[in-house]
Amino acid sequence: MAHIIRGKVYLVGAGPGDPDLLTVKAHRLMRRAGVILHDDLVPAPILALAGPHAEIANVGKRCGRKGITQGEINARMIEAARRGLEVVRLKSGDPGVFGRLAEEVDALESAGVPFEIVPGVTAGAAAAASLGVSLTDRRRSSRVIIVSGHRAPKDAPDEKTDWKSLAREDATLVIYMPGKEFAGLKEELLAAGLDPAIPAVIVSHAATPRERHQSSTLGTLDTLPRMESPAVLLIGWALDRAGRRSKTGAASLAFEEAELILSSL
Amino acid sequence: MAHIIRGKVYLVGAGPGDPDLLTVKAHRLMRRAGVILHDDLVPAPILALAGPHAEIANVGKRCGRKGITQGEINARMIEAARRGLEVVRLKSGDPGVFGRLAEEVDALESAGVPFEIVPGVTAGAAAAASLGVSLTDRRRSSRVIIVSGHRAPKDAPDEKTDWKSLAREDATLVIYMPGKEFAGLKEELLAAGLDPAIPAVIVSHAATPRERHQSSTLGTLDTLPRMESPAVLLIGWALDRAGRRSKTGAASLAFEEAELILSSL
Repeated sequence: MAHIIRGKVYLVGAGPGDPDLLTVKAHRLMRRAGVILHDDLVPAPILALAGPHAEIANVGKRCGRKGITQGEINARMIEAARRGLEVVRLKSGDPGVFGRLAEEVDALESAGVPFEIVPGVTAGAAAAASLGVSLTDRRRSSRVIIVSGHRAPKDAPDEKTDWKSLAREDATLVIYMPGKEFAGLKEELLAAGLDPAIPAVIVSHAATPRERHQSSTLGTLDTLPRMESPAVLLIGWALDRAGRRSKTGAASLAFEEAELILSSL
Repeated sequence: MAHIIRGKVYLVGAGPGDPDLLTVKAHRLMRRAGVILHDDLVPAPILALAGPHAEIANVGKRCGRKGITQGEINARMIEAARRGLEVVRLKSGDPGVFGRLAEEVDALESAGVPFEIVPGVTAGAAAAASLGVSLTDRRRSSRVIIVSGHRAPKDAPDEKTDWKSLAREDATLVIYMPGKEFAGLKEELLAAGLDPAIPAVIVSHAATPRERHQSSTLGTLDTLPRMESPAVLLIGWALDRAGRRSKTGAASLAFEEAELILSSL
C-alpha cells in the first residue's frame, strides 16, 4: 500500500534577498506554508513572511544544524509532505542555479511526493540590476556564462582548459560563490587572451540593505577587497558603465576612481 | 537650465509570462505606474494589472507600431518621466538578458532621467522549473551558458568557433529565440564532439497556459517540431529527467517516448 500523500513540496526561489524581489507566488506560498526549510543565505525579512504556525528550519549546511546531510534534508521534506503539509523548500536566488535542486527532485520523485519548482530571480541578474547594467549588450556581449567559483582553477587544476574556453570578450562571465582570491582566475583569463581592461565588479549581498560592490578590471582582479558572502563576481565589457555611475546617474567618475557606489539607482 | 525631473523610469522584468511570477515589486509598480511601455512578449494578464488611468503602449518592434525605433522608445520614456510620471518599461523575463536594456540605460543617463532596474525571472529558469529540472546539477552540469539563437551558426558563419567553444558536456546550454531550424546547430555541436544522446528540450510559452514542450536529443535536434515564440531551447545532461516525467511524477517513460507532458508538476 502506498502512502496517502496529501501534502506537496514547493521548491522555491527566494530571489537575491530583498522580499520585494520574491515572486508573487513565492510570497503567497511563504505566507501559507506549514513547513519552511530554508538555506543559510535566505535573510530574516523573507522568513518573517511565514505564518504564525509555520515550522521553520534552517537546513543550510553552514549555519543550520552542523553536519546535516542532503539525505536528511530530503527525508524532512518527504516526512512533512506525508503529514499532509505544504512544504516550502526555500533556496536563495533561482533554485535551478547552483541550488542542489536536482538531488532533491530525485528524492521527491522516488518517494512519489508531489512537488513544484517555483523559479526566482537569480543573484547575477539582481547584481547587474543593482549596478545599472545589462548582462547582455547587443554591442558588446552576446552571451552570459554562469559558473561557480567552487570550480575555480586553483581548486581544480583539470578545469584550466575550461576557463580558457569560457574566456570570451563577447561574453559576460557571472561567477557565483567566487571565493576571495582572484589571482588564479586573473592569470587564467589573461592567459586565454582576454583584455586586462575588461571591467570586473564584485557584488556582495546584492539587493539587500547590506549590498556593497567594488569595481575593478580583469588586470587588477587580484586587488579586489575581500567581501562578505553571498557574493557574485561579474566580468565583461557589458559592465563598462558600472564603475562610472554616480548617485545622480551622471557618468562622471573614471572607472578607476569608482568608490563603493551602492544602490545608486 | 536643466529640466526639472520628478518622474522616474523603472526598467522592469515581467518574468516569463505568468503574473504569479512577477516580482512583488514589479506587481506593485505595474499597479501604480502612470505610463507602461511594454514589449511584444508581455501577455495580457500582466498588462491587466495596470491602474485604470495608466497610459499603456506596446512599443514592441513586431506587434507595436510598425517601424518604431529604439530612439523613439527612448524618447517616449524620457518625455513621460519629464511629465513627472512613473514609467514602467516592461520587458519579458529579466531585462538584462537580451532585452536591449543597455541602450535604454544609456539614453536615460544621457538625459539625466532617474531610473531603476527591477530584475525578473528569466525565461530559461522558468522553462527548467516547468520541466522539473535544475539548470545546474552537481553531478552533471556545472555551468549555464545563455546565448541567443539570433547568432546561430547559419546566420553568422563567423560564430562557428564560438559554438564549438560553448559545446561542453558539463554545461547546460540555454538558447533564447532559438528559431525553428536546428539542423545547423546540431551539426555544430556534434562536430564539436558532444554526445548525440544529450537531452534537448524546446519550451514554448513557458509558465503560461499556452506552454508546450517537446523533448529530443542532440542527435535528433533537427526533428523537433516548430513551436511558437517565445521559445527557449535547453540542451544538456541536466535535462535528463525532463523527458521521463509523467503526470504523477513517476519516472516511467523512456526519453524517446516522451510526448508533450505539460505543466506536469
